[in-house]
Amino acid sequence: MTRSHKTQVCIIGSGPSGLLLAQFLAKAGIDTIVIDRKDRAYIEGRIRAGVLEQGAVAGLDEAGVSDRLHTEGLLHDGFDLAFDGDRHRIDLKGLTGKSVMVYGQTEVTKDLFDARTADGQQFFFNVEDVTLDALTSGAPKVRFQHDGQAHEITCDFVAGCDGYHGVSRKAIPADVLKTFERVYPFGWLGILVEKPPVSHELIYANHQRGFALASMRSETRSRYYIQCNASDDVADWSDDRFWDEFATRLGEDTAAKLQIGASFEKSIAPLRSFVAEPMQYGNLFLAGDAAHIVPPTGAKGLNLAVADVRLLSRALIEHFTRGNGAYLETYSEVALKRVWKVERFSWQLSMLMHQFPDHSPFERRMQRAEFDYIASSEVASQVIAENYVGLPLE
Amino acid sequence: MTRSHKTQVCIIGSGPSGLLLAQFLAKAGIDTIVIDRKDRAYIEGRIRAGVLEQGAVAGLDEAGVSDRLHTEGLLHDGFDLAFDGDRHRIDLKGLTGKSVMVYGQTEVTKDLFDARTADGQQFFFNVEDVTLDALTSGAPKVRFQHDGQAHEITCDFVAGCDGYHGVSRKAIPADVLKTFERVYPFGWLGILVEKPPVSHELIYANHQRGFALASMRSETRSRYYIQCNASDDVADWSDDRFWDEFATRLGEDTAAKLQIGASFEKSIAPLRSFVAEPMQYGNLFLAGDAAHIVPPTGAKGLNLAVADVRLLSRALIEHFTRGNGAYLETYSEVALKRVWKVERFSWQLSMLMHQFPDHSPFERRMQRAEFDYIASSEVASQVIAENYVGLPLE
Repeated sequence: MTRSHKTQVCIIGSGPSGLLLAQFLAKAGIDTIVIDRKDRAYIEGRIRAGVLEQGAVAGLDEAGVSDRLHTEGLLHDGFDLAFDGDRHRIDLKGLTGKSVMVYGQTEVTKDLFDARTADGQQFFFNVEDVTLDALTSGAPKVRFQHDGQAHEITCDFVAGCDGYHGVSRKAIPADVLKTFERVYPFGWLGILVEKPPVSHELIYANHQRGFALASMRSETRSRYYIQCNASDDVADWSDDRFWDEFATRLGEDTAAKLQIGASFEKSIAPLRSFVAEPMQYGNLFLAGDAAHIVPPTGAKGLNLAVADVRLLSRALIEHFTRGNGAYLETYSEVALKRVWKVERFSWQLSMLMHQFPDHSPFERRMQRAEFDYIASSEVASQVIAENYVGLPLE
Repeated sequence: MTRSHKTQVCIIGSGPSGLLLAQFLAKAGIDTIVIDRKDRAYIEGRIRAGVLEQGAVAGLDEAGVSDRLHTEGLLHDGFDLAFDGDRHRIDLKGLTGKSVMVYGQTEVTKDLFDARTADGQQFFFNVEDVTLDALTSGAPKVRFQHDGQAHEITCDFVAGCDGYHGVSRKAIPADVLKTFERVYPFGWLGILVEKPPVSHELIYANHQRGFALASMRSETRSRYYIQCNASDDVADWSDDRFWDEFATRLGEDTAAKLQIGASFEKSIAPLRSFVAEPMQYGNLFLAGDAAHIVPPTGAKGLNLAVADVRLLSRALIEHFTRGNGAYLETYSEVALKRVWKVERFSWQLSMLMHQFPDHSPFERRMQRAEFDYIASSEVASQVIAENYVGLPLE
């Protein structure tokens, strides 16, 4: 016996995309149900990016979920690019008038869960066998198993916010969906450590032995990364080995200030660029990682998701509150235009800052020439800066 | 029986680099002998680039060889980038305050030959079996055959201005010389035609069928190019076939204004990026194509040669007239710093504007995203513009 539900928008996935969309829609009086294959504890435990664009902060402000962010987040006015020991600061504030906010995705997710829970959001966690049906009709259906019980949600729209591995994108027929992908020939080994950051701003370093990133989550918690082989196992990397390698890549002067300690999280992530087109199929709309993945260089993943959700929530609100379907019609096109630009930036910064095993000596010198050019040109630094603080929403 | 000569600087090669160097040095009262494997008629017959940076014009002004250039050259305040039918003008003047000058390399070479000949420059043309010796001594020797007679020039310095295929770079021992190279998987088919240009500014177009460039030599003479297979033969390309392909790649609107006619020059050039390091070995100094090659996209070849010669002539003049060797000592380092930046720009513009047979669908989209980003961002347009009008000399 199947339990039936009705809602205006069924949201698949309770990561930051799905939660933020639910939050925006709730504020406009639009009814949603959120389902997820995992539960809140699992989702909040995932360690992800930690740098928010000014536009993403504005989105979270608008959604009314930014109180803690403004108290605990760290405003950063710049960051450093380093190349074989040379350093160049990108003065974000000076070059663009804008800053970025260091605040973990985990915290954003927690704030959103708190807000949605307080507001009585209807959730189904730990759902199984999710299927999407009748997406091109006026009454799409989402079916799933929950706690041994079959459920069917009938809705006006389905929002696919279920990430790269989710079912939403896969519900788009193969002859409609086009995908574009690049897999990078390395991974990022990241650790979290309860020590103050080695530098009060982020340092992205390209060293002969590979990329390193000195990032942070707070003034007492550091997030450090190094480029590693894609096939490496976390077990291969003792803390000691990590610290040795990280210090070497940062260079002596910076490493002298490094406070080391026992890592309390350590993981290896692959690097991938991925875009699916279109981001709409009938009454299914994709947002965030369900539609696109960026390599973490430049910290665009969460920011891109927030941008998608700002566009999609506006489109849905226009539809439901004013009967204006124009924004829904152009959502995919408008979102993708920005997505490709952000993919370009993430790809370019990744190409600039890593060691590529297949690069020719000429290509290695092109990396170095790019760094030297950026370091010598205000407009080239502005290009990096305007992308880092975030391109306009549309 | 060998004929002996003495001079302060023996210049190998009478292309624009060698001639301009001889001109600068003559104005400072420094004695030179110029030798070349070809003769003036051959060198003036070579069709090359036709866009001069403002700094290159300043160099030719300083050398006193720019009267005709200022009368006949065309000042250009911008150019167009086109991508699959979309167009974006790079407003050089508006973005940088500078312009470029359209004036063929052939004309620059003619002006320099006129000036050097009027001044009684000592030339040896059609020389054979050129060898360089004792380069690390205080009295390097250049030996060659001329008109059945063996010659030996003893000099203080040898200037290697004999291009990519010349002997100068090859005189640097293999364990000293490092070279970096990229060969692009296509060529440029270029024609000259006695018809007014299709547009009063240059158009660089990336079309699905390949790159096209609408350039010019004067208001009545057009220089048009299309990307072709590196293995193509000029004989494969009738004028009709060229015009069909060129018109398709320019797009209907522009092609409607195209005046076609019989080509009076047609050739295929390979595209290559190449840098040799260092640009000095003992008392041998390299300048221009002898040390580096850029793909023609962005028209940097001649401009780079002029920049080298400005640095090298200053260094030699400081040495001879003030006994200051500091500029000679740093010549290679200073020149290469700029060379790599210009290589970077030529490589990047080539990567942006051509169809690469080995590109993945993702990489094709990165090209398009780059074009869209440039078209939407003033600072990204400024980056193109500041490189196109020419980076600072040092």
